[in-house]
Amino acid sequence: MSKKSVLVGQSGGPTTVINASLAGVLETSLASDKIENVYGVMNGIKGILDETIIDVSKEDKDEIHKLLNTPSSMLGSVRYKLPSYLDDDTDYKKIKEVFEKLNIGHFFYIGGNDSMDTCNKINEYFKHINFDCTVFGVPKTVDNDLILTDHTPGYGSSIKFIANTVAEIYQDISCYKKGKVTIVEIMGRDAGWLTAGTKLASLVNNGPDLIYLPEVAFDMESFLEKVDTIYKQKGHALITISEGIRDSEGNYILTYSASGAKDEFGHMQLGGVASVLTNIVSTRLHLPTRSIELNLPQRCASHLASLTDIEEAYNLGKNALLFSLDGVSGKMSALERVSSNPYEVKYTYVDLTRVANSVKEVPLNYISKDGSQITNEFIEYALPLIKGNISNLDDNGLVKFAKFNKNFVKL
Amino acid sequence: MSKKSVLVGQSGGPTTVINASLAGVLETSLASDKIENVYGVMNGIKGILDETIIDVSKEDKDEIHKLLNTPSSMLGSVRYKLPSYLDDDTDYKKIKEVFEKLNIGHFFYIGGNDSMDTCNKINEYFKHINFDCTVFGVPKTVDNDLILTDHTPGYGSSIKFIANTVAEIYQDISCYKKGKVTIVEIMGRDAGWLTAGTKLASLVNNGPDLIYLPEVAFDMESFLEKVDTIYKQKGHALITISEGIRDSEGNYILTYSASGAKDEFGHMQLGGVASVLTNIVSTRLHLPTRSIELNLPQRCASHLASLTDIEEAYNLGKNALLFSLDGVSGKMSALERVSSNPYEVKYTYVDLTRVANSVKEVPLNYISKDGSQITNEFIEYALPLIKGNISNLDDNGLVKFAKFNKNFVKL
Repeated sequence: MSKKSVLVGQSGGPTTVINASLAGVLETSLASDKIENVYGVMNGIKGILDETIIDVSKEDKDEIHKLLNTPSSMLGSVRYKLPSYLDDDTDYKKIKEVFEKLNIGHFFYIGGNDSMDTCNKINEYFKHINFDCTVFGVPKTVDNDLILTDHTPGYGSSIKFIANTVAEIYQDISCYKKGKVTIVEIMGRDAGWLTAGTKLASLVNNGPDLIYLPEVAFDMESFLEKVDTIYKQKGHALITISEGIRDSEGNYILTYSASGAKDEFGHMQLGGVASVLTNIVSTRLHLPTRSIELNLPQRCASHLASLTDIEEAYNLGKNALLFSLDGVSGKMSALERVSSNPYEVKYTYVDLTRVANSVKEVPLNYISKDGSQITNEFIEYALPLIKGNISNLDDNGLVKFAKFNKNFVKL
Repeated sequence: MSKKSVLVGQSGGPTTVINASLAGVLETSLASDKIENVYGVMNGIKGILDETIIDVSKEDKDEIHKLLNTPSSMLGSVRYKLPSYLDDDTDYKKIKEVFEKLNIGHFFYIGGNDSMDTCNKINEYFKHINFDCTVFGVPKTVDNDLILTDHTPGYGSSIKFIANTVAEIYQDISCYKKGKVTIVEIMGRDAGWLTAGTKLASLVNNGPDLIYLPEVAFDMESFLEKVDTIYKQKGHALITISEGIRDSEGNYILTYSASGAKDEFGHMQLGGVASVLTNIVSTRLHLPTRSIELNLPQRCASHLASLTDIEEAYNLGKNALLFSLDGVSGKMSALERVSSNPYEVKYTYVDLTRVANSVKEVPLNYISKDGSQITNEFIEYALPLIKGNISNLDDNGLVKFAKFNKNFVKL
């Protein structure tokens, strides 16, 4: 069998460790004698259509290794939806043409839900036209909402940042005798995995007092009652919420008015759901409030990455390459948990067709019966994922990131 | 001379290293054979009036040492303004009574501007009634706006978090070909020291594109023009701003409407100034935007503390104690810079009367002529302050904080 080349791309929202998976694919490919050359495509699938492809063999090996703790997507990202090839095969023909020119025999796509769908479509097309190229997905998403893998790379580092930051915030707000009701908004529209992660802060100090996920209907009156009780007891309260929390009728709490009722006029809110809720607390309970949105650092706080997460992300990329060399195709690299204590995972793969377009929600046994707290079962699940400390700070005290020269190939 | 006891309190907004100064006072007092006992007052000056005072000699020595990297104020905080004793000496008489009961001969107050004012008032009263007790201020404030000290403890750790987070955000937002105009809001109502700190991120990658401080009048049209040019060039833009930026007439930009003009109706804005500005960018330039408020983590992100900052905070507390034992009183512990490269400081003290109620702004040679960037002179000033990396993460990957038993004394 003649040697073929590797092409790898990244897609979707970046994470702290999506570049670690990239390093796994790149370093393993570059070290293999079964591979002709190694290419990276800029800005995902769109970069194949635009022919913006770089020759990774020309990058500095040290810089490639630094990818292990460099946030964001070194190869750029894109949000582009491929049509079905049955409806329109223009893009697919172009992809095949580019792959032929570069002698690509192994394609890797690192991404979340939508990216696995893209990956699956390309694989289906290649099978349909009998084109000789393995297609492999490598999972990433801070949201942890991909099915058929115990967890997704990116999630561990994200909740490591979130839990520690919430612990620090709780420490901070506890210093006044009469403090504030502080509401922290966490990413997560449909699944509350990231918000559940704030529970790990309880291992540091006493927060958060209440935790609300989209998986359980949010009841305003019960919420206000709980906040009032906690504040009267402690002189402060810390509540963490998912951006996507909804009431029992499915209305987003983000659309509520300051009175705490559904805003029939649909007024645009400038802030997020945390600032909507703090307004309601202040109007209804007359308590001082503060809203905090953790925002982008949730997916790029590389200075607080989990070494476990980095290593798993790397190995998922590496294994995708090794499985591909064995001829496996149309799969996504995945993690299977062997045990939580001691923590042990097995590297495996699952069918792309089964992964694409499904969402894994937080199971109900991780959520307390009244829907306002997280159980110890979740702690057991999540704690191993943030383990292992690693620093990417230089002597100046600043984070150090990989830099690529990006030698574009002419097709 | 008979031995006297030490009393120490904390006040104002907490910082990442205000507890390191506390550790400096406590460890040095506990180790000294010239001191009878060591007390801590809860919630600042209010705790003296309320008689909520703990016996620090009964705390675990390891926990006291952990204060070096524990954010927030272990002794709690308060916002309480003492009247002038000439108007009303009730509080002052109570303070003297408590000090006599506990045989306090050395009082230390760790805080910012207002706390130095409190400290000064107590010192003036003690001089007035000829009460034998030294009074010493220990500076803290992330705002870096105290005069007569090269910088304030808390500032270095704060900009270490801010600069690294902005670098990570810049890395994240650069991954799309057509990204967003991202505006990051930083603490600082009257002084732009913290926002200036975002310039250190430029040593990591290419951000921030524009930096605006309250020291220079903000011009909306020139801002919009610059954002438009940068976005057209790069496909994204990162702007950092102080919460207190104002126009040439002194109006806060926070009060502007979505059209970019001063909002004559004074509509309440839910978000902060970053969300006001992103609305204007979106209305006027039709560009996609995102606003980020770094919020409380700016003053409590202990996991990213600067070792230089921790050591200086500790030494300022320690030296306050040593100076007091020499009979010095009515002063604030201070830092004098000997040189920036190599970085060297001298520990000294300054008159409390001169420090209280003044604000140190960012000097104009640290700001570019057009007011939209920060100069290299600032980098030279600020870079040494974030140096030295130290971790307070445990084996689980979670921050570890000091815990006090708090044995309250009966008076």
